[in-house]
Amino acid sequence: MEKDRHTQETSCRRDAGRSSSFRAHLPEIVDQIVRSCENRQCCHHTAYEPIPSRESVIEIVEGLRDVIFPGYFNRNRMDPVNLKYMLGQSVSGLYDMLAEQICRSIRHDCFRYEKPCMKCEEQGQEIALALFRSVPDIQAMLSADVAAAYEGDPAAASEDEIIFSYPGIFAIMVYRVAHRLFEFEVPLLPRIMTEYAHSITGIDIHPGAEIGTRFVIDHGTGVVIGETTVIGHNVRVYQGVTLGALSLPKDAGERLRGKKRHPTIEDDVIIYSGATILGGDTVIGRRCVIGGNVWLTASIPPDTRVLMEPPKLVYR
Amino acid sequence: MEKDRHTQETSCRRDAGRSSSFRAHLPEIVDQIVRSCENRQCCHHTAYEPIPSRESVIEIVEGLRDVIFPGYFNRNRMDPVNLKYMLGQSVSGLYDMLAEQICRSIRHDCFRYEKPCMKCEEQGQEIALALFRSVPDIQAMLSADVAAAYEGDPAAASEDEIIFSYPGIFAIMVYRVAHRLFEFEVPLLPRIMTEYAHSITGIDIHPGAEIGTRFVIDHGTGVVIGETTVIGHNVRVYQGVTLGALSLPKDAGERLRGKKRHPTIEDDVIIYSGATILGGDTVIGRRCVIGGNVWLTASIPPDTRVLMEPPKLVYR
Amino acid sequence: MEKDRHTQETSCRRDAGRSSSFRAHLPEIVDQIVRSCENRQCCHHTAYEPIPSRESVIEIVEGLRDVIFPGYFNRNRMDPVNLKYMLGQSVSGLYDMLAEQICRSIRHDCFRYEKPCMKCEEQGQEIALALFRSVPDIQAMLSADVAAAYEGDPAAASEDEIIFSYPGIFAIMVYRVAHRLFEFEVPLLPRIMTEYAHSITGIDIHPGAEIGTRFVIDHGTGVVIGETTVIGHNVRVYQGVTLGALSLPKDAGERLRGKKRHPTIEDDVIIYSGATILGGDTVIGRRCVIGGNVWLTASIPPDTRVLMEPPKLVYR
Amino acid sequence: MEKDRHTQETSCRRDAGRSSSFRAHLPEIVDQIVRSCENRQCCHHTAYEPIPSRESVIEIVEGLRDVIFPGYFNRNRMDPVNLKYMLGQSVSGLYDMLAEQICRSIRHDCFRYEKPCMKCEEQGQEIALALFRSVPDIQAMLSADVAAAYEGDPAAASEDEIIFSYPGIFAIMVYRVAHRLFEFEVPLLPRIMTEYAHSITGIDIHPGAEIGTRFVIDHGTGVVIGETTVIGHNVRVYQGVTLGALSLPKDAGERLRGKKRHPTIEDDVIIYSGATILGGDTVIGRRCVIGGNVWLTASIPPDTRVLMEPPKLVYR
Amino acid sequence: MEKDRHTQETSCRRDAGRSSSFRAHLPEIVDQIVRSCENRQCCHHTAYEPIPSRESVIEIVEGLRDVIFPGYFNRNRMDPVNLKYMLGQSVSGLYDMLAEQICRSIRHDCFRYEKPCMKCEEQGQEIALALFRSVPDIQAMLSADVAAAYEGDPAAASEDEIIFSYPGIFAIMVYRVAHRLFEFEVPLLPRIMTEYAHSITGIDIHPGAEIGTRFVIDHGTGVVIGETTVIGHNVRVYQGVTLGALSLPKDAGERLRGKKRHPTIEDDVIIYSGATILGGDTVIGRRCVIGGNVWLTASIPPDTRVLMEPPKLVYR
Amino acid sequence: MEKDRHTQETSCRRDAGRSSSFRAHLPEIVDQIVRSCENRQCCHHTAYEPIPSRESVIEIVEGLRDVIFPGYFNRNRMDPVNLKYMLGQSVSGLYDMLAEQICRSIRHDCFRYEKPCMKCEEQGQEIALALFRSVPDIQAMLSADVAAAYEGDPAAASEDEIIFSYPGIFAIMVYRVAHRLFEFEVPLLPRIMTEYAHSITGIDIHPGAEIGTRFVIDHGTGVVIGETTVIGHNVRVYQGVTLGALSLPKDAGERLRGKKRHPTIEDDVIIYSGATILGGDTVIGRRCVIGGNVWLTASIPPDTRVLMEPPKLVYR
Repeated sequence: MEKDRHTQETSCRRDAGRSSSFRAHLPEIVDQIVRSCENRQCCHHTAYEPIPSRESVIEIVEGLRDVIFPGYFNRNRMDPVNLKYMLGQSVSGLYDMLAEQICRSIRHDCFRYEKPCMKCEEQGQEIALALFRSVPDIQAMLSADVAAAYEGDPAAASEDEIIFSYPGIFAIMVYRVAHRLFEFEVPLLPRIMTEYAHSITGIDIHPGAEIGTRFVIDHGTGVVIGETTVIGHNVRVYQGVTLGALSLPKDAGERLRGKKRHPTIEDDVIIYSGATILGGDTVIGRRCVIGGNVWLTASIPPDTRVLMEPPKLVYR
Repeated sequence: MEKDRHTQETSCRRDAGRSSSFRAHLPEIVDQIVRSCENRQCCHHTAYEPIPSRESVIEIVEGLRDVIFPGYFNRNRMDPVNLKYMLGQSVSGLYDMLAEQICRSIRHDCFRYEKPCMKCEEQGQEIALALFRSVPDIQAMLSADVAAAYEGDPAAASEDEIIFSYPGIFAIMVYRVAHRLFEFEVPLLPRIMTEYAHSITGIDIHPGAEIGTRFVIDHGTGVVIGETTVIGHNVRVYQGVTLGALSLPKDAGERLRGKKRHPTIEDDVIIYSGATILGGDTVIGRRCVIGGNVWLTASIPPDTRVLMEPPKLVYR
Repeated sequence: MEKDRHTQETSCRRDAGRSSSFRAHLPEIVDQIVRSCENRQCCHHTAYEPIPSRESVIEIVEGLRDVIFPGYFNRNRMDPVNLKYMLGQSVSGLYDMLAEQICRSIRHDCFRYEKPCMKCEEQGQEIALALFRSVPDIQAMLSADVAAAYEGDPAAASEDEIIFSYPGIFAIMVYRVAHRLFEFEVPLLPRIMTEYAHSITGIDIHPGAEIGTRFVIDHGTGVVIGETTVIGHNVRVYQGVTLGALSLPKDAGERLRGKKRHPTIEDDVIIYSGATILGGDTVIGRRCVIGGNVWLTASIPPDTRVLMEPPKLVYR
Repeated sequence: MEKDRHTQETSCRRDAGRSSSFRAHLPEIVDQIVRSCENRQCCHHTAYEPIPSRESVIEIVEGLRDVIFPGYFNRNRMDPVNLKYMLGQSVSGLYDMLAEQICRSIRHDCFRYEKPCMKCEEQGQEIALALFRSVPDIQAMLSADVAAAYEGDPAAASEDEIIFSYPGIFAIMVYRVAHRLFEFEVPLLPRIMTEYAHSITGIDIHPGAEIGTRFVIDHGTGVVIGETTVIGHNVRVYQGVTLGALSLPKDAGERLRGKKRHPTIEDDVIIYSGATILGGDTVIGRRCVIGGNVWLTASIPPDTRVLMEPPKLVYR
Repeated sequence: MEKDRHTQETSCRRDAGRSSSFRAHLPEIVDQIVRSCENRQCCHHTAYEPIPSRESVIEIVEGLRDVIFPGYFNRNRMDPVNLKYMLGQSVSGLYDMLAEQICRSIRHDCFRYEKPCMKCEEQGQEIALALFRSVPDIQAMLSADVAAAYEGDPAAASEDEIIFSYPGIFAIMVYRVAHRLFEFEVPLLPRIMTEYAHSITGIDIHPGAEIGTRFVIDHGTGVVIGETTVIGHNVRVYQGVTLGALSLPKDAGERLRGKKRHPTIEDDVIIYSGATILGGDTVIGRRCVIGGNVWLTASIPPDTRVLMEPPKLVYR
Repeated sequence: MEKDRHTQETSCRRDAGRSSSFRAHLPEIVDQIVRSCENRQCCHHTAYEPIPSRESVIEIVEGLRDVIFPGYFNRNRMDPVNLKYMLGQSVSGLYDMLAEQICRSIRHDCFRYEKPCMKCEEQGQEIALALFRSVPDIQAMLSADVAAAYEGDPAAASEDEIIFSYPGIFAIMVYRVAHRLFEFEVPLLPRIMTEYAHSITGIDIHPGAEIGTRFVIDHGTGVVIGETTVIGHNVRVYQGVTLGALSLPKDAGERLRGKKRHPTIEDDVIIYSGATILGGDTVIGRRCVIGGNVWLTASIPPDTRVLMEPPKLVYR
């Protein structure tokens, strides 16, 4: 009986969840982390200004998808009658969010690097407006991208299937939006957008890249398209393709920022899976076909087909 | 004083958030997007019929995982006593959702391509029922897949660890479900399912592929398994492996739809990371081992081990 | 009129949603799945004990990111004044969650493998405490990782951009936390953590790997770093790099568990995209540069640059 | 040591959460509840038809509030430019929901009482359409209600304050909507609506009551307005006022269903808090003032002021 | 120009959101609240033990409603086939939650009042089990309550309408459950339950009251039924009825705790709106009818009809 | 067969959900509502400025409850060690929200009534700061309220029960906070707060009332305390008590705004359920006891007990 009570008390005390040891150390833990932040220059962000919100950026990207491909992903039923209302309502809300995130991105840079005033609020509003005015252009480009994907892919049962489920088209859509913001020199935001698409699709397109119409990425996982890449029209790229920079010195960051470091791919090129094309001076000429796993650091003339030599069989 | 008020007014007006410029342009922006939709054939979906909902499909996939691997991912505690109730309740709810999404997928095709009536509701109900009747079979196959993964992977501490955390097993589970729906000729839905798994795991298995028992994908990122691939029993595949089609002409979409374009992998084959095997006539014989990064477009006889030749060192 | 009513009734009955066929089969479906679970040894988890919750683990990982990089991802505004409070509150809540999940992981093993008592609750509390006491160390390492990433990447506009959006830094953060738990021999949990990062980033680092400071992963999709890999300081790795085990016999799981099976990478090494380095005895010496797509199964002396031979062009 | 382990095991077993006793009884508990349902005629609802969803009805009511009082409760910013879009989008979504809930309500009656076909779907659509066409009328009435509330209440600082926070105006709004549906003879739904308002405000207006313009309820808690009440224009009612039926025989339900049982209140009447007015033949004439706590079961001629006699003081 | 920049900077600084004044005072504010808590005996609850969670209690109440009235409020469709599964799954989950909340309530008392061990966990499990075993009894009582409500209320179109929307039946349901827990001497929990119903319905029934079958509360707002009230079978009560205690001395709390302080209502009594009946010795005999607004502090013999005298009209 | 297809088509068309009639009328419906808004002066709020958000106000009220009664309602465990952190974090977040809502409330008035600049942002920050600096005072008052409630209520098992579940203490808490904001002349916000409490508790306290310490409201449903009421210390009030204004002329709103219209209750008074006390000149002297249902419009000297005369029994 007495024993029973003792057991119970023990269990009750144990159940308290936080060991006395934790309670004793908590203030010290907190102080150490605070001090650790104070001692570091980077990697904490305890400023008086609100910073861009990754969550809001994701909401913007998803909302833009509903505007660009209306009817596919909306929760509410869309028909020709309420299309206009849906668009008006979505654009209004997205404009507010986008203007604020652009403003925060500019202000963040402004404060952190002690730049002169960049009129962040005005810029946020103007750039957001400009983006929405270009939505029909973006839609036209994406329609061409979808059509090209359908034409070249026997596994696609319909264009709807591509829009519903192809990671490539999602990555390209996010790139096309982020690229506009990049052109307006919005900091941070374009990259947060494309890295969101990267995490969903495994396709990593830097918003600085320049990409023509009818661009297709098939399967897509592992594709990397670097910041200064230039891609023509009607280009098709498969999974695992890298359009990257040549081997960089360890201090490349500072020295090469803004230089052309990634290749140029001309019109009508196909690049098969796993191929790697590197270097700012590398140009892949029109109508070239680059075979799978090929590794290139030099230019290729037009109409060339570059293939790996077949491997040798080793019997064991 | 007077000045103060002025400043404040400025700030208040500025805070209004939406620039007058935006307000002036909104109706025009909306009208342009509407017109842009009207002018395009594809890429908008403003129909009178509800279309498949990507969100519901994801909910179905996650729900099926709880039914197939009961107790691992459920929020509520599962024990031998309430297993039956959980299953009954989950299957009821999932059946309703699945029947509706199948119906919508069929009806979508029916309307868009002006097919004759396909009895979408009846088919939705029948196919959903058939799928749930085959759950024990799917479970048996997945148990074998898990066992095979555990036997061959020294890094796996337990079968539970594999079920909890291995992307390969999730991708295979989704494939095995989607493949059943593909066999019932359900449009759209199977691909939305496998592309969901693709976005989570980086593993892209087309629901049309045919894959035997004890299938293992290790690490998995970048794996691509094409629509007409045939894979035997007891096959193991590593990250970055492509089982794909040979280089396609630009208009391949229409011409090759439904043709065998992807390879056949016989029983007991291992394919190491980065290997690429292409072509509908390519057959990898039983017990072959395909080394990492190998690129194959022709058949390999049984019991062969194909390796890359070792690279030459270049000192600089 | 009469006809109208008939039609309506039909439609009403049809709308019931669940076909009578489904209702007739539901009990049988449930019983078969129950029996299917009873017959299998693995792949169901209907135990009396709560098991680790994948959802909680994800919440812990996201919460730790807020503690480690304060101010970047928090929903609430962070400034130097409330930093301390945010940390104290977050650490308290995360400690409770982490202690419980550690406890569940240990207990799960304990019950499933009928081990003697492992004092799971006490261990859960002690290990969680130890982890939080090491947060400043983890922060210091991650600051160095961020600095190294910035120095070597011309595409990075700022260190903030890296923290906000680079998948590599997220994967390394999760690894550094999971590795601590791995060192404390916590089962299941560390792997669930790193596989969560894998699904977000496409980067698969086993929590058992040992990785030095200033570690950089660029782009990252497809990177695999095996359980017994050892990586020195100042190493930079690109997308698609595999640090793996040599070809394994089919029953490798049991025989090789715990053995050194993955390579050693010494300080200051750079490994370009798509390279594969395999084997527990393989050592890549200091200051080596391993070129893209290179496939290595043997050691390389320090200061070596290993490149693929350039492919031969095949004109067609 | 041995003891320690024993304690731990006990605690682990105890922690399992569900006593073996519960597990032993669960099937029996379930079977008994199932049998209990089978034995009762009412109080369970396990039909093949979906029934009205209380959650959806609440969503409809809240959505209608946003349409009727645009800009007060919407999450998104509303301005003269996007008003139209917000309305179009909201009305589209609410129409779908309302049509479905009306359909379900009609069908529910149809099936439960084995009525002939009532064309539930068509009726759902027609009535929902009719309701939305009458929104401007409802708005006009509510504007008059708000104006009357403001004119008579010195505690109201503005009409906005009334719309934002007065329970009376919310209850009247819900009544005005529900009354329309009641006039269309929609079963169930109108009452679920007004009882939702009742739970929020403590004001219980039966949807069958007929109430003129410029109706004001101040404070409101405890107000009851019965099904066959008729209220003229410009009437003001305070908290705790009952407009009810005379004492009913125990079997009143069946006998009096549909009879006029509640009073008639003519134009310009004020009824102070706690007053009770009962009976279908009771008429309160124009411009009457009914004092607080007064209890009336007979008609009062116009222009009468009815007061309680002052209480006698009892000193103790 | 220069001026512009200045303005902008001002606005940027101002936008920081938290005034420097707030930042300067935050630590002091926090310390003062902490000290304020330390100085007070009550009104803070910073214990090492988890306390009952109001949120969980609400979830339990809503979940029990789904079990007791199956099919009315469930999100998922309920039909005769899946009723059993829904019940099994719901009861399992609710049992876990209820057992934990009972345990916490008992332990809370145990610790706060330094009672000897009360075996809180065992009691939690036993009482939760007992409650679920009595669900069929509770259902039978509530079916009788619903039937009585329907028989006496001409405004009720169906029993379904009563279950869907009548606040009285919700308050009685919660009371009948809470009363069981009160009988098991569970502290805190029963009252949190009935006060939740109070906040939804305006009906305040103390869980200690004893109430017979076929109990009806119509409209209900303002009803108060005190702790030691005894109510027979077939009693009907209207809005604003108080069954309370006589005027209490200021220190009544301690002296009268547990004494019979509230009236006894015998079978077949009707009490109209606003009536007040006070005192532990007051007995309202069988078949009495108590008129609206009547105020009683003494017993009434059976078969009596007690009415207010009609008020005198005062013309002004 | 042919017939079958026809039927199906019908059903498919019917399923489209939105009748063609609705689609035809939607633009007209929208335009009419827009015009209806344009024609009315009040009842729409389509301004360029954000207005107070009812949702945020509710979040603020719930958050303040966690700060004022720490540990009772928080989701996370609270113990003496993390109390400080929780408070710091909560106060920081609530300050931001409160400052913004105060600012919006002031600006709303400013714009709508075209007042001169009221420095809304500065005021928002200053008033929010002042409120948080007075939290210890508010806590002290509420502790006294809780203690008084416990002393006088035999049904209260503990002070914790009062805090957890008594609606009176919630309403008083919200009043005490809102009253501070009212004293700072914040428009709109205080009333939205107290009306939120009104909807939860049925207790309607105007934020303008002045109420002393040790105030108790028992049961509470239907209590109304008007704007210019003055209540001394140690007053106890029961359900259904009205402290209101005398009968108002129809145009009272404008003429009496801000005048003393509600009674004064001196120290140590008890007012039983249903009593009504009206008029700005009515003073209830110290230590009075006002009986249930009493109706008073004139002052009562101290130490008086006012009771209703007992009703006459009418036998029928």
